[in-house]
Amino acid sequence: MSTDQATVPVSTATGLIDPRAVLDRHVDDLTTRFAGVVSRETIERIVFESYTALGRTAKVKTHVPVLACRFATERLTALAQAKGTWAKDVPEVLFVCVQNAGRSQIAAAYLAHLAKGRVHVRSAGSLPAAQVDPVVLQALAEVGLGPAAGAGAASTDPEELAFPKPLTDDVVQAADVVITMGCGDACPIYPGKRYLDWDVADPAGQGLAVVRAIRDAIARRVSALVEEIAPTAAR
Amino acid sequence: MSTDQATVPVSTATGLIDPRAVLDRHVDDLTTRFAGVVSRETIERIVFESYTALGRTAKVKTHVPVLACRFATERLTALAQAKGTWAKDVPEVLFVCVQNAGRSQIAAAYLAHLAKGRVHVRSAGSLPAAQVDPVVLQALAEVGLGPAAGAGAASTDPEELAFPKPLTDDVVQAADVVITMGCGDACPIYPGKRYLDWDVADPAGQGLAVVRAIRDAIARRVSALVEEIAPTAAR
Repeated sequence: MSTDQATVPVSTATGLIDPRAVLDRHVDDLTTRFAGVVSRETIERIVFESYTALGRTAKVKTHVPVLACRFATERLTALAQAKGTWAKDVPEVLFVCVQNAGRSQIAAAYLAHLAKGRVHVRSAGSLPAAQVDPVVLQALAEVGLGPAAGAGAASTDPEELAFPKPLTDDVVQAADVVITMGCGDACPIYPGKRYLDWDVADPAGQGLAVVRAIRDAIARRVSALVEEIAPTAAR
Repeated sequence: MSTDQATVPVSTATGLIDPRAVLDRHVDDLTTRFAGVVSRETIERIVFESYTALGRTAKVKTHVPVLACRFATERLTALAQAKGTWAKDVPEVLFVCVQNAGRSQIAAAYLAHLAKGRVHVRSAGSLPAAQVDPVVLQALAEVGLGPAAGAGAASTDPEELAFPKPLTDDVVQAADVVITMGCGDACPIYPGKRYLDWDVADPAGQGLAVVRAIRDAIARRVSALVEEIAPTAAR
């Protein structure tokens, strides 16, 4: 499916640029990066399926090719870890909520901040929203945190944007600890992992005062988790 | 990731059966079926990702491994077609709506019925629902149609159950005609395909009378489509 895109860069149906040229370049780059670990065929599928999955829910379509590449890179890294080909230096924690727009983004931001490299964090949603909740971004910015990807609340650079991602099998397989919030039993259960379910209110549609309280409740839980799975060397 | 599941068939966290034994058997079967066409690594990814994707939204979790295998088989067939490895004898039509619970299921059922093998039909949703709308199943049963998979409205056999599926890249790549209903620009645009957008009301939450009218409106559009892309030999 990558042989004939050069001749027709623009779709006559919509005037949109054919995404395949951009995605094929990502496939080339990732094939080099994951050489000997994941085959080109699998990489191509993960890149294109990531593009389609994010495009289903994204409102701003222009960012989707770039975000799809970031998402695919993370998924391929998880796959290499789950295969045991790439060693995990630190525990992998996966936060899952419904929209990956509020609770799991707050938890991921706090864990990345508090664990300072002693834990690696991923997040996902069972029904991802079109974008991270702006009130959540505001509440995180107040305490000096962007979402886990390092985005500031006001960033519009797709390279820095935190974005809702659907829960995929690869990131579950790679996780040591899976923490669900409000998404019921949407996450596959595999042996050998630790599953926790946190009872935390949903910030969706709430005002800043409520979201601040949710943020602080999540912060307390994340703080206790860090003390447990990745205590500081001094302790 | 398939090396250690035999020793721990049951998750201690939930008491659920570990899905990996069932999914690994499907991977074995499909690796034989798609030998020389799709690699085992890609097949494994598509089977496990199909399982996770359906599990995110399904209410009845017990059916998910079986439905995931059907979904994965269809996706692999589409992939083989898109690669040009498997010939397409008839045009491929893909219907996409939001939930893959109403409009796209009705359209797929009518097209499969009216085209009588002269067209192959797939359907998908941008935000798939937990199940096909029961009122839609009732309205289809009234005219002697189950959803495209051949399911009767009352079937509870997962082998026969029509089920909402997320839109994936593979089925778009394989399609000759993509018909969207109410899902905006959620579908990737690739050159060389025909894209149609049908303005049809959403049956979600509507009573039987309204759903019947929607069903009949879709039937008229599908009938015209069949005349155009797959006229009967007698004409």
